[in-house]
Amino acid sequence: ALRSGLITITTPDCGRCPCLTLHVFNPERIAMSSTPSPLARPFPAMPMIDGVSLHVARAGYKEWGRCDLTFVTLSPGTSVAGVLTQSRCPSPEVDWCRSSLAHGRARALVVNAGNANAFTGHRGRVAVEAIAARVVDYLGCQPSDVFVASTGVIGTALPIPKAEAGLDAAFAAPACDWEDAARTIGTTDTFPKGAVARAIIDGRTVTLVGIIKGSGMIAPDMATMLGFIFTDAAVVPAFLQMALAEANRASFSCITVDSDTSTSDTVLAFATGAAGHAPLTGLESPGADAFCAAMNALCLELAQLVVRDGEGATKFIRIDVTGAESDRSAHRIGMSIANSPLVKTAIAGEDANWGRVVMAVGKAGEPADRDRLSIRFGTTQVAACGLAVEGYDEAPVAAHLKGQEINIGVDLGLGSGCATIWTCDLTHGYISINADYRS
Amino acid sequence: ALRSGLITITTPDCGRCPCLTLHVFNPERIAMSSTPSPLARPFPAMPMIDGVSLHVARAGYKEWGRCDLTFVTLSPGTSVAGVLTQSRCPSPEVDWCRSSLAHGRARALVVNAGNANAFTGHRGRVAVEAIAARVVDYLGCQPSDVFVASTGVIGTALPIPKAEAGLDAAFAAPACDWEDAARTIGTTDTFPKGAVARAIIDGRTVTLVGIIKGSGMIAPDMATMLGFIFTDAAVVPAFLQMALAEANRASFSCITVDSDTSTSDTVLAFATGAAGHAPLTGLESPGADAFCAAMNALCLELAQLVVRDGEGATKFIRIDVTGAESDRSAHRIGMSIANSPLVKTAIAGEDANWGRVVMAVGKAGEPADRDRLSIRFGTTQVAACGLAVEGYDEAPVAAHLKGQEINIGVDLGLGSGCATIWTCDLTHGYISINADYRS
Repeated sequence: ALRSGLITITTPDCGRCPCLTLHVFNPERIAMSSTPSPLARPFPAMPMIDGVSLHVARAGYKEWGRCDLTFVTLSPGTSVAGVLTQSRCPSPEVDWCRSSLAHGRARALVVNAGNANAFTGHRGRVAVEAIAARVVDYLGCQPSDVFVASTGVIGTALPIPKAEAGLDAAFAAPACDWEDAARTIGTTDTFPKGAVARAIIDGRTVTLVGIIKGSGMIAPDMATMLGFIFTDAAVVPAFLQMALAEANRASFSCITVDSDTSTSDTVLAFATGAAGHAPLTGLESPGADAFCAAMNALCLELAQLVVRDGEGATKFIRIDVTGAESDRSAHRIGMSIANSPLVKTAIAGEDANWGRVVMAVGKAGEPADRDRLSIRFGTTQVAACGLAVEGYDEAPVAAHLKGQEINIGVDLGLGSGCATIWTCDLTHGYISINADYRS
Repeated sequence: ALRSGLITITTPDCGRCPCLTLHVFNPERIAMSSTPSPLARPFPAMPMIDGVSLHVARAGYKEWGRCDLTFVTLSPGTSVAGVLTQSRCPSPEVDWCRSSLAHGRARALVVNAGNANAFTGHRGRVAVEAIAARVVDYLGCQPSDVFVASTGVIGTALPIPKAEAGLDAAFAAPACDWEDAARTIGTTDTFPKGAVARAIIDGRTVTLVGIIKGSGMIAPDMATMLGFIFTDAAVVPAFLQMALAEANRASFSCITVDSDTSTSDTVLAFATGAAGHAPLTGLESPGADAFCAAMNALCLELAQLVVRDGEGATKFIRIDVTGAESDRSAHRIGMSIANSPLVKTAIAGEDANWGRVVMAVGKAGEPADRDRLSIRFGTTQVAACGLAVEGYDEAPVAAHLKGQEINIGVDLGLGSGCATIWTCDLTHGYISINADYRS
């Protein structure tokens, strides 16, 4: 890992770009944008994956003294799967990945930070094609083997000279570790986010690791955020897609920071097959259950880390909805609660204002019966059967709300549908961050 | 109007309620909760309506030195119509009004401020019945002639002794004017809100007046807020309902402060018929067009006043969506923009961050084509056909965003569907108000 130096690569000035002196910084200097979220978690010990090599460089997409381009090479034969934003205004990167996923194979991933390249018309598409072409030249692979993701400000086309020079610097850079890569893909993130899971397949231990970025514009409902998962397991693309989509349903699709779904949400999973076992082809393959369980656990951990870095967040909120008519209905009710600014500000104020939870259930447009509804904060039932629980003990509720981990339980009393949603509170920090982000 | 005195009515202490000494305050002392919104409008000159008599009193639902009970009598034969919250967790007042509206006639309206009486089970229903019974005794009318609305904290049953004593005080109080009533129905409102419109029917000028309250928990989508409209026009209940529902679609259903739909949203319209013309029975009645136009104008003004009192608001935002596949689709896209915390905080920060508008269009789940989408701020086109307008002049955009009245235009380029939505920005004020409202 690049832990001990500073490499400076100077490329000729093409006259179009004022910032072509590229620096590959010591990763210790890839600073996050601000002080870590109070809900931050330390970066875990994450092993390298055979067949995966990580490199970071500075393309200079913004005026910041940090690396902002991540280049990952993948060994020939690597399977790929992905889930992408359902936005009707997707970035050209999302379009590109959607089209490339049909081939099921990957040799490289390029992640740009500081510029989303979204809503940039023809120029945005050309920039993605240029990036892929540069990687094709370097690796001798097909364009559809190259995956590209970008986040940052919307509306400015990714500058091709900066991207190309950044790539050249990355090609020349020594390999780095997961934490360096996790820092480099971040934008408004306050801490690097990664997770690891393992499964035993056919007697061999396989490893799944993932890194993720995201802090605001987070409501991936049925899609995802910018996350990348790598494993040495051998998995055919179709089954890798199935495992990722299934894991996505109970993880990235169950988080929200601010109800705002990004134009760029992308989660890609890459399986190099270096572990050498017989490839997983479906649920009936030996070890497929273990692999899917590890994928589920990994995605859930990554999704929760994004909530922990929610803009301005001071509380990590888990909402359990039970007794709904269906799981889908429970999910929508949970999202209605999780996206309610009044519920989120009440939690920020450590106020057990369960009336706002009632409001959010009522507005969800899902089957609900006011007189069967019950609500708990932590383990204390505060409302049941349509009214407040007579004389419930407020002390444990107040103590629970003073903590960082808040649990709200809602039972509809109608059926067996259930869902769990994770979100964070809404604070002055969110306003401060977002009232002057672009300016 | 009660402009010159202080009436104190002392009722016997029943032993159950610590606050049975009731005061009818000088309305000058019905203070609003805080300094007026920077977007506030002066209360208009509003004439009294023949057949309508207004009274305010202090029931003491909260520990505040102001009137909080409004009692309105209506002459026999008054028609009534209403639109009510679509929440699945409505207050018992909403249930009561929905049931009474079937009769089409009204003799009285009681509005309680400071306690929503929502999610209070059997006790809440009993409280509404007790209020109606007290009014029935006083006026000699039917229970279904009495309409009741309450807003304030959710989860605490309206205390019957306070309500009854408050009503007794209101019965004894001299009549007051619209501004007194508008102040008394308010809760977190920062200024009293009223509007007036007129129409000529059959040679006679009829007057429509309305008062409204609301500031947070405002997203009346397909329902409304707490508003009351009175007219001396003669209108049969079915047509009054049609006129109100139609006006609602383009006014209360097109505003949002925070996306949170209340348990108590109610707009009632009362027509005393005192103007003496032949009753309007349908769109074919002479003057019906004028009446509907006046109703539309009145509802739009009242709805906009609520946005002007949005919690923490510093900007009044109008969003015009055109070129959508249908009006319904345009409405949903407009609401997606208006409810986006990232769009609202960008406006608060006077930042022409149209990328966030693109994001909100993309997430709306409605037909949209990124490459046909165009966006303007004020009158300046900033993005068109899927990318930023080359070299658009930022000066008028910056000047527009520094103002209090912000206009965002979005054209989908798909069809002829259009909608206009009104909202406000999201500021530190909203967080401050809502992180400690109940406590």
